[in-house]
Amino acid sequence: MSATAKKMKVGFIGLGIMGQSMAGHLLDAGHDLNVYNRTRSKAEDLIGRGAVWCDSPGKVAAASDVVITVVGYPRDVEEVYLGPAGIVAHAHEGALLIDMTTSSPDLARRIARAAVTRGMTALDAPVSGGDGGARTGTLTIMAGGSDEGFARARPLFEAMGTTIVHMGAAGAGQHTKMANQIAIASTMLAVSESLAYAEAAGLSLGQVLEVIGTGAASSFLLNGLGPKMVAADYSPGFFVHHFVKDMSIALAECERLGLDLPGLALARRLYQRLVDGGYGEEGTQALYRVYTQLMGVSDAV
Amino acid sequence: MSATAKKMKVGFIGLGIMGQSMAGHLLDAGHDLNVYNRTRSKAEDLIGRGAVWCDSPGKVAAASDVVITVVGYPRDVEEVYLGPAGIVAHAHEGALLIDMTTSSPDLARRIARAAVTRGMTALDAPVSGGDGGARTGTLTIMAGGSDEGFARARPLFEAMGTTIVHMGAAGAGQHTKMANQIAIASTMLAVSESLAYAEAAGLSLGQVLEVIGTGAASSFLLNGLGPKMVAADYSPGFFVHHFVKDMSIALAECERLGLDLPGLALARRLYQRLVDGGYGEEGTQALYRVYTQLMGVSDAV
Repeated sequence: MSATAKKMKVGFIGLGIMGQSMAGHLLDAGHDLNVYNRTRSKAEDLIGRGAVWCDSPGKVAAASDVVITVVGYPRDVEEVYLGPAGIVAHAHEGALLIDMTTSSPDLARRIARAAVTRGMTALDAPVSGGDGGARTGTLTIMAGGSDEGFARARPLFEAMGTTIVHMGAAGAGQHTKMANQIAIASTMLAVSESLAYAEAAGLSLGQVLEVIGTGAASSFLLNGLGPKMVAADYSPGFFVHHFVKDMSIALAECERLGLDLPGLALARRLYQRLVDGGYGEEGTQALYRVYTQLMGVSDAV
Repeated sequence: MSATAKKMKVGFIGLGIMGQSMAGHLLDAGHDLNVYNRTRSKAEDLIGRGAVWCDSPGKVAAASDVVITVVGYPRDVEEVYLGPAGIVAHAHEGALLIDMTTSSPDLARRIARAAVTRGMTALDAPVSGGDGGARTGTLTIMAGGSDEGFARARPLFEAMGTTIVHMGAAGAGQHTKMANQIAIASTMLAVSESLAYAEAAGLSLGQVLEVIGTGAASSFLLNGLGPKMVAADYSPGFFVHHFVKDMSIALAECERLGLDLPGLALARRLYQRLVDGGYGEEGTQALYRVYTQLMGVSDAV
């Protein structure tokens, strides 16, 4: 812990691949850590390093000044925060609650309102950078909520990430993450369709990636996932079913905003086909399967 | 001209912004240049630098050992090559014909076959890199055709570009350019939809571009055209109507190949709406207008 950072009592709920790494950085930074996870075994490593196990989200909250969550789906976020054994019902007045799950902006606002009525402060602070970024403490953190809450959270964010941005009021962090996922959605169409065309035209896909990967068509995803598509390597970096979740949240928010994003809607439809085909546990580059295996003439849009 | 490069009699047909720069590099490299353009005034600068004016594509062909074309649409390519006053009817036996227009792979194969029956060699060699790349001689050149034709063309290509790739038989150059344009098409959806969402959600668009522009959502187009969308700067780098042409060629080729690319089809539909709205002379970043001005609830896909 740096000389200027204050030691805090931090609760951490959700110890998946991301959460374990992120919570570990908080331990390393010298904070007291109370942990809960649906599957206790995933907490063992952190407990061995000094974290204290609690039997429910509410018990984590009761023992902590700051509570951080990284769980799965919006329904999990809702239960963990607003359920009877949840955080808002059991945290102290003055507690700071930070949801770092990629979740619904609308739900983030509801949690923030519920927190305020109990004298607490809530932030939404989803991340990008994946498990690699979580492991190395180099995540991008997009936060929504009050200035005061953001200022209190900053030393914790700095233990987990390198790009830390306060995007606005409650929900703004989730909105920013949605903007990120929306850009990824149609860029994945771009990469898959370009390669599917090149393959159908009989070109060398490696050569095509080399030629188009430095100019106007280039993207992080073309250059990073294009070669995996060419190699039919569909091992997960980011799971298809997680991405479908994110796109579904974004589309629900679009409906609320009266916004029509047909590229996003198309991407979600094609990714849903992957899930239906049993490929939900593959990486997002498996979208290429839709073009090379699953697309029929009847699918013409 | 380098010591090893042979001086050639080169014909150049099509002196738009790209063609003028490209032909100028061939003059600078020491080649003899015969030129034709529908509008003669665009040839004046090159004529002043030593190029010889010819009154038709056929006359250019008759006076040259190598003929290069950069014209507008596939119908122009077809007329210039296969029409009665065209190149194939008037070039010498042994002539090398190089179409650098972005045009139809199918037409490229037809021209190559017609050339062979008259003892000529044809290449398709579209470029990427835009008017900037043409001006500085740093284009990417994607060529299709015979090894022998490509070897003969290489010193000329080297005067105009820096990345020069032989992609395969006749049509392979155009196919590669189509793969490039297909990747651009859905990436433009990605950039526009991400920003349209961010705007509807009330985020700072500049801040969103900064946050998402370094991670998985980043692309040449997000980082290059995103800021122009935010500034409502729709001045042309690459014209909307040219991009619609390219996407139409790609979709026609998809039909031939029995390939369904719904992202490409969607992008073409939305860009066509821009043309219909009178925005065809704007840059491709004007796609943002579709989301902020032209999209209605009835457009839900």
